[in-house]
Amino acid sequence: MEQTDIDSALIERCVHDLARHGKYGETGVWRTVYSPEWVAARDEIAAWMRDAGLDVRSDAVGNVWGRVDGSEGAGSIVTGSHFDSQRPGGRFDGVLGIISGVVAVRALLEQVGRPRRTIEVVALCEEESSRFPTAMFWGSRAITGGIKPGDVDSTFDLDGMTIAQAMREVGLDPDRAGEAIRNDIDAFIELHIEQGPLLEQLGLPVAVVSAITGIRTYTVELRGTANHAGAFPMDLRRDPMADAAEIISGLINTAHRMGRPTVTTVGRIQAEPNYPPIVPERVTFSVDARHPDPDKREHLYAMHEALMNEVAERRGLDLTLTVRSQHAPQTCDHELVRLFEDTARELAIAFTTMPSGAAHDSQQIATIARVIMLFVQSKDGRSHTPEEFTSTEHAAEGTRVLAGGLRRLAY
Amino acid sequence: MEQTDIDSALIERCVHDLARHGKYGETGVWRTVYSPEWVAARDEIAAWMRDAGLDVRSDAVGNVWGRVDGSEGAGSIVTGSHFDSQRPGGRFDGVLGIISGVVAVRALLEQVGRPRRTIEVVALCEEESSRFPTAMFWGSRAITGGIKPGDVDSTFDLDGMTIAQAMREVGLDPDRAGEAIRNDIDAFIELHIEQGPLLEQLGLPVAVVSAITGIRTYTVELRGTANHAGAFPMDLRRDPMADAAEIISGLINTAHRMGRPTVTTVGRIQAEPNYPPIVPERVTFSVDARHPDPDKREHLYAMHEALMNEVAERRGLDLTLTVRSQHAPQTCDHELVRLFEDTARELAIAFTTMPSGAAHDSQQIATIARVIMLFVQSKDGRSHTPEEFTSTEHAAEGTRVLAGGLRRLAY
Repeated sequence: MEQTDIDSALIERCVHDLARHGKYGETGVWRTVYSPEWVAARDEIAAWMRDAGLDVRSDAVGNVWGRVDGSEGAGSIVTGSHFDSQRPGGRFDGVLGIISGVVAVRALLEQVGRPRRTIEVVALCEEESSRFPTAMFWGSRAITGGIKPGDVDSTFDLDGMTIAQAMREVGLDPDRAGEAIRNDIDAFIELHIEQGPLLEQLGLPVAVVSAITGIRTYTVELRGTANHAGAFPMDLRRDPMADAAEIISGLINTAHRMGRPTVTTVGRIQAEPNYPPIVPERVTFSVDARHPDPDKREHLYAMHEALMNEVAERRGLDLTLTVRSQHAPQTCDHELVRLFEDTARELAIAFTTMPSGAAHDSQQIATIARVIMLFVQSKDGRSHTPEEFTSTEHAAEGTRVLAGGLRRLAY
Repeated sequence: MEQTDIDSALIERCVHDLARHGKYGETGVWRTVYSPEWVAARDEIAAWMRDAGLDVRSDAVGNVWGRVDGSEGAGSIVTGSHFDSQRPGGRFDGVLGIISGVVAVRALLEQVGRPRRTIEVVALCEEESSRFPTAMFWGSRAITGGIKPGDVDSTFDLDGMTIAQAMREVGLDPDRAGEAIRNDIDAFIELHIEQGPLLEQLGLPVAVVSAITGIRTYTVELRGTANHAGAFPMDLRRDPMADAAEIISGLINTAHRMGRPTVTTVGRIQAEPNYPPIVPERVTFSVDARHPDPDKREHLYAMHEALMNEVAERRGLDLTLTVRSQHAPQTCDHELVRLFEDTARELAIAFTTMPSGAAHDSQQIATIARVIMLFVQSKDGRSHTPEEFTSTEHAAEGTRVLAGGLRRLAY
């Protein structure tokens, strides 16, 4: 297999240039969907695509597509990721999948010429739900038909603005959001930073992703009785903090015992009245539990729910368990996994194959196309923070694997 | 022993009338120190005292004193409590100790005449620290010399106003706060609602309080590393939420196992960034731990601190343990305990003897006088809430015991 030369200086320049739009401190980015800095980033990405020799268009929700038509028919081979960020996030999450796509396709067009199959690079408008809490995967959901009529008017940002109004402000017509649907994509390849420490620990630049984890998030509310912290004996209390502590310990221990890649996280907690000398009346917390294997995931949730019910009943607390979100696990396409593993092997780029513990646009796009993801090493496994960092060397290795796979698929 | 007739209708009327000042909903009161409603309550209490035949004065911090000079010398026999409230609180906490004092002394003066020893009823200006978080026991501390020069300018309310300015607004000169000191009090008797459920469970109207609990409050801060809830394996996390849950369970279980009257409460908790899909970087919580026995109290704190240090070290988290406040336990005067027990027995009023799990002004006054407290039954043990309730019948039983004890001490 012939190697495609990848311009690593161009990758570095693109990372640097795009980080100017929504720059936050030295290395951070704060770029939420449909903001002025998002518009600036979109325009810069479109310019890169044109410069790479692609035909560029923005779709009905603001996804940017760069396309080169193949000499034969059949569905498109698409690569890309999202260009919105956390508040603040870093310079790599999402964006690196767009940059590697542009750089890989540019190299292929220059070095190999017109493809047999149509290739597209897509810059997805929104993935992080960092402005509109319920908008998660807005870009990829628009493509797959996952945005329902009325969603544009019932999706609010933290200031109460609808996403419809935000779209109008950047020149998009929210009534046309449905027109972003695609039904002609054959394969979607998303390169992304790992967001965990495993590649760094293994000393590897790249992973082929075999599956994307399944997620369920709960809000757990425990209600007891507020009482005086001094005058009310321990044995007569209905203390939801004691209950919450036992449950949180139990959930985290359960995930520990099941071993990798099981993860369970309590990231948010709130007590009421949240006053030191009062036994709380109510404690509310989030549970985020993930497993990429459908059966083990169901087992994890069954154990979690049994534990919560048992503790609340034994302690006489009122438990309300609300499922906030669900994302089914997504096995990546077996053929594509094998194709990218073979590509990395032939390019002599050291890699491992692993599941993704994070959610990604690929999960959405899997409903309409074969999908595969590539991970590149993240320093300290950090992401969603200005400190996230991926070296240009590792990004270039990932882009080489991406280009090699695109070459196999489209030429 | 002759019984003093107590006007229970007067008790009920006083509770009702005073609750108008700072009325909150149907049964609540919101009356913080030096507020307009506090001024109205102060003036009404002064009128009751005058009506009972007492000489009335307001001291340098706004405590109201009603006095009848005894025919002999020696220190005063004082009874009373505070008339500020929580935000909101109820109609009984604090106030009932003033009302019972006025009603008891009025009955004694009418039915027995001038006492041998000087009797005073005091309405303390502030106890709850519900407006100025660091002002706790402002009224009783002024009497005992516990207010230091400069305190008036470094004690701020939640809007940033100094207590000096608040005092000026109600006509008090903050520079004269030191003049409230008393050194001529022999005995202080404080009647108060129980704030716990024990009397109700025992079916008793009254308790003689043998000791006031010792309190230590901590702020516990645990710092780990924020990470992605999906991509970061459980076994590599430094998750302060897991640590906090284990510690909170352990602290509460420790207090349980030590048995009554040990209490440990985690009333406040906060996670950062407090975002469901992020392993928290920091979890902070309060610990309020109480025991009335000095040695057992030290043992409780030693066990709590050892547990927190052990868990944090084992889990590799950074622990910062800050002692926020300390109140030494206060044994009530043995002679006074016996005297009030005897009084209740002779009056055929069923009672128990118990420690107070709540902090009270009596703890402060114990530094300059013999102290004793009486509790009356609280419905469901509720306090610091508009729902707190004590029946007139129980309040009158407590007032009978108070009057009986005053009669023994002052006549």
